[in-house]
Amino acid sequence: MKEKGLLIVLSGPSGVGKGTVRKAIFSREDVKFDYSISMTTRKPREGEVDGVDYFFKSREEFEQLIQEGKLLEYAEFVGNYYGTPVDYVRETLDAGTDIFLEIEVEGARQVREKFPEGLFIFLAPPSLSELHSRIIGRGTETDEVIRGRMEQARKEIDMMDLYDYVVENDEVERACSRIQSIVEAEHCRRERVQHRYQIMLELEGEQ
Amino acid sequence: MKEKGLLIVLSGPSGVGKGTVRKAIFSREDVKFDYSISMTTRKPREGEVDGVDYFFKSREEFEQLIQEGKLLEYAEFVGNYYGTPVDYVRETLDAGTDIFLEIEVEGARQVREKFPEGLFIFLAPPSLSELHSRIIGRGTETDEVIRGRMEQARKEIDMMDLYDYVVENDEVERACSRIQSIVEAEHCRRERVQHRYQIMLELEGEQ
Repeated sequence: MKEKGLLIVLSGPSGVGKGTVRKAIFSREDVKFDYSISMTTRKPREGEVDGVDYFFKSREEFEQLIQEGKLLEYAEFVGNYYGTPVDYVRETLDAGTDIFLEIEVEGARQVREKFPEGLFIFLAPPSLSELHSRIIGRGTETDEVIRGRMEQARKEIDMMDLYDYVVENDEVERACSRIQSIVEAEHCRRERVQHRYQIMLELEGEQ
Repeated sequence: MKEKGLLIVLSGPSGVGKGTVRKAIFSREDVKFDYSISMTTRKPREGEVDGVDYFFKSREEFEQLIQEGKLLEYAEFVGNYYGTPVDYVRETLDAGTDIFLEIEVEGARQVREKFPEGLFIFLAPPSLSELHSRIIGRGTETDEVIRGRMEQARKEIDMMDLYDYVVENDEVERACSRIQSIVEAEHCRRERVQHRYQIMLELEGEQ
Protein backbone atom coordinates (compact mmCIF):
# COMPACT_ATOMS: atom_id res chain seq x y z
CA MET A 1 0.00 0.00 0.00
CA LYS A 2 1.46 3.30 -1.14
CA GLU A 3 0.75 6.44 0.82
CA LYS A 4 0.16 9.52 -1.32
CA GLY A 5 2.72 12.31 -1.23
CA LEU A 6 2.07 15.72 0.28
CA LEU A 7 1.39 18.76 -1.87
CA ILE A 8 3.45 21.55 -0.33
CA VAL A 9 2.64 25.10 -1.42
CA LEU A 10 4.94 27.99 -0.53
CA SER A 11 3.52 31.42 -1.20
CA GLY A 12 3.43 34.91 0.25
CA PRO A 13 3.36 38.58 -0.71
CA SER A 14 5.49 39.59 -3.69
CA GLY A 15 9.01 40.57 -2.79
CA VAL A 16 9.10 38.44 0.36
CA GLY A 17 11.79 36.16 -1.07
CA LYS A 18 9.85 33.00 -2.04
CA GLY A 19 12.23 32.20 -4.92
CA THR A 20 15.32 32.63 -2.77
CA VAL A 21 13.96 30.35 -0.06
CA ARG A 22 12.90 27.76 -2.62
CA LYS A 23 16.35 27.70 -4.22
CA ALA A 24 18.02 27.45 -0.82
CA ILE A 25 15.82 24.49 0.14
CA PHE A 26 16.56 22.61 -3.07
CA SER A 27 20.28 23.17 -2.64
CA ARG A 28 20.15 21.20 0.61
CA GLU A 29 21.30 17.60 0.61
CA ASP A 30 18.53 16.28 2.82
CA VAL A 31 15.59 17.69 0.89
CA LYS A 32 12.95 14.98 0.57
CA PHE A 33 10.51 16.47 -1.88
CA ASP A 34 10.34 17.13 -5.60
CA TYR A 35 10.09 20.56 -7.13
CA SER A 36 7.20 21.25 -9.43
CA ILE A 37 8.66 23.04 -12.43
CA SER A 38 6.48 25.89 -13.64
CA MET A 39 5.44 26.55 -17.20
CA THR A 40 5.78 29.97 -18.80
CA THR A 41 5.39 31.81 -22.06
CA ARG A 42 8.21 34.20 -21.34
CA LYS A 43 11.45 33.73 -23.27
CA PRO A 44 14.27 31.77 -21.58
CA ARG A 45 16.93 34.00 -20.05
CA GLU A 46 20.63 33.39 -20.50
CA GLY A 47 21.47 30.00 -18.98
CA GLU A 48 17.91 28.88 -18.34
CA VAL A 49 17.16 25.34 -19.47
CA ASP A 50 13.80 24.04 -20.67
CA GLY A 51 12.53 21.40 -18.26
CA VAL A 52 14.88 22.52 -15.51
CA ASP A 53 14.12 26.15 -14.77
CA TYR A 54 10.79 26.25 -16.57
CA PHE A 55 8.88 24.49 -19.27
CA PHE A 56 8.96 27.12 -22.00
CA LYS A 57 5.83 27.21 -24.16
CA SER A 58 4.34 29.45 -26.82
CA ARG A 59 1.29 31.52 -25.98
CA GLU A 60 -0.84 29.26 -28.19
CA GLU A 61 0.38 26.09 -26.47
CA PHE A 62 -0.24 27.60 -23.04
CA GLU A 63 -3.76 28.70 -23.89
CA GLN A 64 -4.47 25.25 -25.30
CA LEU A 65 -3.40 23.71 -21.95
CA ILE A 66 -5.63 26.13 -20.07
CA GLN A 67 -8.55 25.03 -22.27
CA GLU A 68 -7.79 21.38 -21.57
CA GLY A 69 -7.66 21.93 -17.81
CA LYS A 70 -4.04 20.87 -17.71
CA LEU A 71 -2.97 23.65 -15.33
CA LEU A 72 -3.37 23.40 -11.60
CA GLU A 73 -3.08 27.17 -11.40
CA TYR A 74 -1.98 29.97 -13.69
CA ALA A 75 -1.75 33.73 -13.91
CA GLU A 76 -0.56 36.39 -16.29
CA PHE A 77 2.19 38.82 -15.27
CA VAL A 78 3.42 41.64 -17.50
CA GLY A 79 2.14 39.94 -20.61
CA ASN A 80 3.41 36.43 -19.88
CA TYR A 81 1.62 33.37 -18.55
CA TYR A 82 3.00 31.38 -15.63
CA GLY A 83 1.40 28.17 -14.41
CA THR A 84 1.74 24.71 -12.85
CA PRO A 85 1.17 21.65 -15.06
CA VAL A 86 -1.24 19.39 -13.17
CA ASP A 87 -0.17 16.00 -14.57
CA TYR A 88 3.32 16.04 -13.10
CA VAL A 89 1.91 17.05 -9.72
CA ARG A 90 -0.65 14.23 -9.71
CA GLU A 91 1.85 11.61 -10.88
CA THR A 92 4.37 12.61 -8.22
CA LEU A 93 1.78 12.52 -5.44
CA ASP A 94 0.43 9.16 -6.62
CA ALA A 95 3.96 7.76 -6.57
CA GLY A 96 4.10 8.66 -2.86
CA THR A 97 6.54 11.55 -3.24
CA ASP A 98 5.97 15.01 -1.78
CA ILE A 99 5.95 17.85 -4.27
CA PHE A 100 6.78 21.48 -3.64
CA LEU A 101 5.22 24.45 -5.43
CA GLU A 102 6.46 28.01 -5.08
CA ILE A 103 3.75 30.24 -6.45
CA GLU A 104 1.99 33.60 -6.13
CA VAL A 105 -0.82 34.20 -3.66
CA GLU A 106 -3.48 34.14 -6.37
CA GLY A 107 -2.16 30.79 -7.64
CA ALA A 108 -2.20 29.39 -4.11
CA ARG A 109 -5.87 30.31 -3.88
CA GLN A 110 -6.58 28.32 -7.06
CA VAL A 111 -4.62 25.31 -5.75
CA ARG A 112 -6.42 25.40 -2.39
CA GLU A 113 -9.73 24.96 -4.21
CA LYS A 114 -8.50 21.90 -6.09
CA PHE A 115 -6.30 20.38 -3.34
CA PRO A 116 -7.81 21.46 -0.02
CA GLU A 117 -5.73 18.76 1.71
CA GLY A 118 -2.45 20.41 0.57
CA LEU A 119 0.03 21.90 3.00
CA PHE A 120 -0.08 25.67 2.55
CA ILE A 121 2.83 27.70 3.92
CA PHE A 122 2.81 31.50 3.96
CA LEU A 123 6.20 33.17 3.85
CA ALA A 124 5.90 36.36 5.90
CA PRO A 125 8.10 39.43 5.69
CA PRO A 126 10.23 39.83 8.82
CA SER A 127 8.98 43.40 9.03
CA LEU A 128 5.66 42.05 10.31
CA SER A 129 7.42 41.18 13.55
CA GLU A 130 8.54 44.76 13.84
CA LEU A 131 5.15 46.26 13.21
CA HIS A 132 5.75 49.06 15.61
CA SER A 133 8.95 50.42 14.11
CA ARG A 134 7.61 49.74 10.66
CA ILE A 135 4.39 51.61 11.19
CA ILE A 136 5.62 54.50 13.26
CA GLY A 137 8.87 54.80 11.35
CA ARG A 138 11.25 57.34 12.79
CA GLY A 139 8.53 59.47 14.29
CA THR A 140 8.59 61.87 11.36
CA GLU A 141 5.83 60.26 9.35
CA THR A 142 2.49 61.84 8.58
CA ASP A 143 -0.73 60.20 9.79
CA GLU A 144 -1.45 59.28 6.21
CA VAL A 145 1.79 57.34 5.84
CA ILE A 146 1.16 55.54 9.12
CA ARG A 147 -2.40 54.65 8.10
CA GLY A 148 -1.08 53.32 4.78
CA ARG A 149 1.44 51.08 6.53
CA MET A 150 -1.14 49.74 8.92
CA GLU A 151 -3.42 49.02 6.00
CA GLN A 152 -0.63 47.15 4.22
CA ALA A 153 0.15 45.09 7.34
CA ARG A 154 -3.53 44.31 7.80
CA LYS A 155 -3.74 43.07 4.18
CA GLU A 156 -0.76 40.77 4.64
CA ILE A 157 -2.15 39.39 7.88
CA ASP A 158 -5.55 38.79 6.26
CA MET A 159 -3.85 36.99 3.34
CA MET A 160 -2.70 34.33 5.81
CA ASP A 161 -6.28 33.08 6.30
CA LEU A 162 -5.90 30.53 3.53
CA TYR A 163 -2.73 28.97 4.96
CA ASP A 164 -1.89 26.24 7.46
CA TYR A 165 1.46 27.64 8.54
CA VAL A 166 3.26 30.97 8.58
CA VAL A 167 7.05 31.04 8.29
CA GLU A 168 8.83 34.29 8.87
CA ASN A 169 11.60 34.92 6.37
CA ASP A 170 13.87 36.56 8.92
CA GLU A 171 16.84 34.58 7.62
CA VAL A 172 16.81 32.28 4.58
CA GLU A 173 18.41 29.24 6.23
CA ARG A 174 16.13 29.47 9.26
CA ALA A 175 13.09 29.75 7.01
CA CYS A 176 14.26 26.63 5.11
CA SER A 177 14.68 24.66 8.34
CA ARG A 178 11.23 25.65 9.52
CA ILE A 179 9.70 24.54 6.22
CA GLN A 180 11.48 21.19 6.45
CA SER A 181 10.27 20.78 10.05
CA ILE A 182 6.72 21.51 8.99
CA VAL A 183 6.86 18.84 6.28
CA GLU A 184 8.39 16.30 8.69
CA ALA A 185 5.80 17.08 11.37
CA GLU A 186 2.99 16.81 8.87
CA HIS A 187 4.08 13.24 8.08
CA CYS A 188 3.72 12.44 11.79
CA ARG A 189 0.14 13.73 12.10
CA ARG A 190 -1.91 11.18 13.92
CA GLU A 191 -4.72 10.90 11.34
CA ARG A 192 -2.17 10.07 8.64
CA VAL A 193 -0.10 7.53 10.61
CA GLN A 194 -3.03 5.89 12.34
CA HIS A 195 -4.84 5.45 9.05
CA ARG A 196 -1.78 3.72 7.58
CA TYR A 197 -1.61 1.31 10.52
CA GLN A 198 -5.34 0.63 10.33
CA ILE A 199 -5.09 -0.32 6.68
CA MET A 200 -2.18 -2.66 7.47
CA LEU A 201 -4.21 -4.27 10.22
CA GLU A 202 -7.24 -4.73 8.00
CA LEU A 203 -5.06 -6.33 5.35
CA GLU A 204 -3.76 -8.76 8.00
CA GLY A 205 -7.31 -9.52 9.17
CA GLU A 206 -8.31 -10.52 5.67
CA GLN A 207 -5.62 -13.10 5.27
CA MET B 1 2.77 40.85 24.90
CA LYS B 2 4.02 37.44 25.93
CA GLU B 3 2.88 34.39 24.02
CA LYS B 4 2.16 31.37 26.21
CA GLY B 5 4.43 28.34 25.95
CA LEU B 6 3.36 25.02 24.51
CA LEU B 7 2.55 22.06 26.72
CA ILE B 8 4.23 19.08 25.04
CA VAL B 9 3.18 15.62 26.19
CA LEU B 10 5.13 12.53 25.16
CA SER B 11 3.45 9.24 25.95
CA GLY B 12 2.94 5.78 24.52
CA PRO B 13 2.59 2.13 25.49
CA SER B 14 4.79 0.93 28.33
CA GLY B 15 8.15 -0.38 27.18
CA VAL B 16 8.22 1.74 24.03
CA GLY B 17 11.21 3.77 25.25
CA LYS B 18 9.65 7.08 26.34
CA GLY B 19 12.29 7.64 29.04
CA THR B 20 15.17 6.92 26.69
CA VAL B 21 13.85 9.34 24.07
CA ARG B 22 13.20 12.02 26.70
CA LYS B 23 16.75 11.73 28.05
CA ALA B 24 18.20 11.85 24.53
CA ILE B 25 16.21 15.01 23.73
CA PHE B 26 17.35 16.80 26.85
CA SER B 27 20.96 15.88 26.17
CA ARG B 28 20.78 17.88 22.93
CA GLU B 29 22.26 21.34 22.85
CA ASP B 30 19.49 22.93 20.84
CA VAL B 31 16.56 21.80 22.96
CA LYS B 32 14.22 24.74 23.45
CA PHE B 33 11.82 23.48 26.08
CA ASP B 34 11.87 22.82 29.80
CA TYR B 35 11.41 19.41 31.34
CA SER B 36 8.64 19.02 33.85
CA ILE B 37 10.13 17.07 36.75
CA SER B 38 7.79 14.43 38.11
CA MET B 39 6.93 13.88 41.75
CA THR B 40 7.07 10.44 43.31
CA THR B 41 6.75 8.62 46.61
CA ARG B 42 9.31 5.98 45.69
CA LYS B 43 12.69 6.14 47.37
CA PRO B 44 15.54 7.83 45.48
CA ARG B 45 17.87 5.37 43.75
CA GLU B 46 21.64 5.63 43.95
CA GLY B 47 22.68 8.91 42.36
CA GLU B 48 19.19 10.38 41.97
CA VAL B 49 18.86 13.96 43.14
CA ASP B 50 15.73 15.56 44.58
CA GLY B 51 14.55 18.33 42.27
CA VAL B 52 16.58 17.01 39.35
CA ASP B 53 15.43 13.45 38.67
CA TYR B 54 12.25 13.67 40.71
CA PHE B 55 10.69 15.58 43.53
CA PHE B 56 10.73 12.95 46.27
CA LYS B 57 7.78 13.15 48.67
CA SER B 58 6.27 11.08 51.41
CA ARG B 59 2.98 9.33 50.81
CA GLU B 60 1.25 11.76 53.15
CA GLU B 61 2.64 14.80 51.33
CA PHE B 62 1.64 13.36 47.96
CA GLU B 63 -1.92 12.60 49.06
CA GLN B 64 -2.19 16.10 50.51
CA LEU B 65 -1.23 17.54 47.09
CA ILE B 66 -3.81 15.34 45.38
CA GLN B 67 -6.46 16.69 47.79
CA GLU B 68 -5.40 20.25 47.03
CA GLY B 69 -5.62 19.73 43.27
CA LYS B 70 -1.90 20.42 42.91
CA LEU B 71 -1.26 17.56 40.47
CA LEU B 72 -1.90 17.85 36.78
CA GLU B 73 -2.00 14.07 36.58
CA TYR B 74 -0.99 11.19 38.79
CA ALA B 75 -1.12 7.42 38.99
CA GLU B 76 -0.01 4.64 41.29
CA PHE B 77 2.44 1.98 40.09
CA VAL B 78 3.53 -0.95 42.24
CA GLY B 79 2.65 0.86 45.44
CA ASN B 80 4.20 4.23 44.58
CA TYR B 81 2.63 7.44 43.38
CA TYR B 82 3.96 9.31 40.36
CA GLY B 83 2.58 12.66 39.26
CA THR B 84 3.13 16.06 37.66
CA PRO B 85 3.02 19.16 39.89
CA VAL B 86 0.71 21.62 38.18
CA ASP B 87 2.16 24.91 39.48
CA TYR B 88 5.52 24.55 37.77
CA VAL B 89 3.78 23.68 34.49
CA ARG B 90 1.51 26.72 34.65
CA GLU B 91 4.31 29.10 35.65
CA THR B 92 6.54 27.88 32.81
CA LEU B 93 3.78 28.22 30.22
CA ASP B 94 2.83 31.69 31.49
CA ALA B 95 6.48 32.75 31.17
CA GLY B 96 6.26 31.84 27.47
CA THR B 97 8.45 28.73 27.68
CA ASP B 98 7.45 25.36 26.28
CA ILE B 99 7.33 22.52 28.77
CA PHE B 100 7.78 18.83 28.10
CA LEU B 101 6.07 16.01 30.01
CA GLU B 102 6.96 12.35 29.58
CA ILE B 103 4.15 10.38 31.16
CA GLU B 104 2.08 7.20 30.98
CA VAL B 105 -0.94 6.88 28.71
CA GLU B 106 -3.40 7.19 31.60
CA GLY B 107 -1.69 10.39 32.78
CA ALA B 108 -1.83 11.80 29.23
CA ARG B 109 -5.58 11.24 29.26
CA GLN B 110 -5.88 13.28 32.47
CA VAL B 111 -3.75 16.08 31.02
CA ARG B 112 -5.79 16.18 27.81
CA GLU B 113 -8.90 16.91 29.86
CA LYS B 114 -7.25 19.85 31.62
CA PHE B 115 -5.12 21.15 28.71
CA PRO B 116 -6.97 20.23 25.51
CA GLU B 117 -4.76 22.72 23.64
CA GLY B 118 -1.59 20.78 24.55
CA LEU B 119 0.57 19.06 21.95
CA PHE B 120 0.15 15.31 22.42
CA ILE B 121 2.75 13.03 20.86
CA PHE B 122 2.38 9.26 20.85
CA LEU B 123 5.61 7.28 20.72
CA ALA B 124 4.87 4.14 18.71
CA PRO B 125 6.78 0.86 18.78
CA PRO B 126 8.64 0.28 15.51
CA SER B 127 7.03 -3.13 15.40
CA LEU B 128 3.79 -1.46 14.35
CA SER B 129 5.40 -0.76 11.00
CA GLU B 130 6.17 -4.42 10.67
CA LEU B 131 2.71 -5.60 11.54
CA HIS B 132 2.90 -8.45 9.11
CA SER B 133 6.05 -10.09 10.42
CA ARG B 134 5.03 -9.27 13.95
CA ILE B 135 1.63 -10.84 13.65
CA ILE B 136 2.47 -13.82 11.52
CA GLY B 137 5.82 -14.38 13.21
CA ARG B 138 7.84 -17.16 11.66
CA GLY B 139 4.88 -19.02 10.33
CA THR B 140 4.88 -21.45 13.24
CA GLU B 141 2.40 -19.57 15.41
CA THR B 142 -1.01 -20.84 16.39
CA ASP B 143 -4.14 -18.95 15.39
CA GLU B 144 -4.56 -17.97 19.01
CA VAL B 145 -1.13 -16.33 19.16
CA ILE B 146 -1.81 -14.48 15.91
CA ARG B 147 -5.19 -13.28 17.16
CA GLY B 148 -3.55 -12.08 20.39
CA ARG B 149 -0.96 -10.08 18.49
CA MET B 150 -3.57 -8.51 16.24
CA GLU B 151 -5.58 -7.57 19.31
CA GLN B 152 -2.52 -5.97 20.90
CA ALA B 153 -1.75 -4.00 17.73
CA ARG B 154 -5.36 -2.88 17.52
CA LYS B 155 -5.21 -1.62 21.12
CA GLU B 156 -2.07 0.37 20.45
CA ILE B 157 -3.56 1.89 17.32
CA ASP B 158 -6.76 2.80 19.17
CA MET B 159 -4.71 4.41 21.95
CA MET B 160 -3.49 6.97 19.39
CA ASP B 161 -6.97 8.53 19.16
CA LEU B 162 -6.15 11.04 21.88
CA TYR B 163 -2.96 12.31 20.22
CA ASP B 164 -2.05 14.94 17.66
CA TYR B 165 1.08 13.24 16.36
CA VAL B 166 2.55 9.75 16.19
CA VAL B 167 6.33 9.34 16.22
CA GLU B 168 7.76 5.93 15.54
CA ASN B 169 10.62 5.03 17.85
CA ASP B 170 12.55 3.20 15.14
CA GLU B 171 15.77 4.90 16.22
CA VAL B 172 16.16 7.17 19.26
CA GLU B 173 17.93 10.05 17.47
CA ARG B 174 15.43 10.05 14.63
CA ALA B 175 12.54 10.04 17.08
CA CYS B 176 14.12 13.03 18.87
CA SER B 177 14.50 14.97 15.62
CA ARG B 178 10.89 14.29 14.70
CA ILE B 179 9.70 15.53 18.08
CA GLN B 180 11.77 18.71 17.72
CA SER B 181 10.36 19.24 14.21
CA ILE B 182 6.82 18.84 15.52
CA VAL B 183 7.40 21.48 18.19
CA GLU B 184 8.99 23.87 15.68
CA ALA B 185 6.15 23.34 13.19
CA GLU B 186 3.56 23.86 15.89
CA HIS B 187 5.04 27.30 16.57
CA CYS B 188 4.49 28.17 12.90
CA ARG B 189 0.79 27.21 12.86
CA ARG B 190 -1.15 29.96 11.19
CA GLU B 191 -3.73 30.51 13.95
CA ARG B 192 -0.92 31.09 16.46
CA VAL B 193 1.23 33.41 14.33
CA GLN B 194 -1.66 35.33 12.79
CA HIS B 195 -3.16 35.94 16.22
CA ARG B 196 0.12 37.35 17.46
CA TYR B 197 0.31 39.75 14.50
CA GLN B 198 -3.33 40.76 14.96
CA ILE B 199 -2.73 41.68 18.58
CA MET B 200 0.32 43.73 17.60
CA LEU B 201 -1.73 45.54 14.98
CA GLU B 202 -4.56 46.28 17.42
CA LEU B 203 -2.07 47.66 19.90
CA GLU B 204 -0.74 49.97 17.19
CA GLY B 205 -4.26 51.05 16.27
CA GLU B 206 -4.95 52.12 19.84
CA GLN B 207 -2.03 54.48 20.04
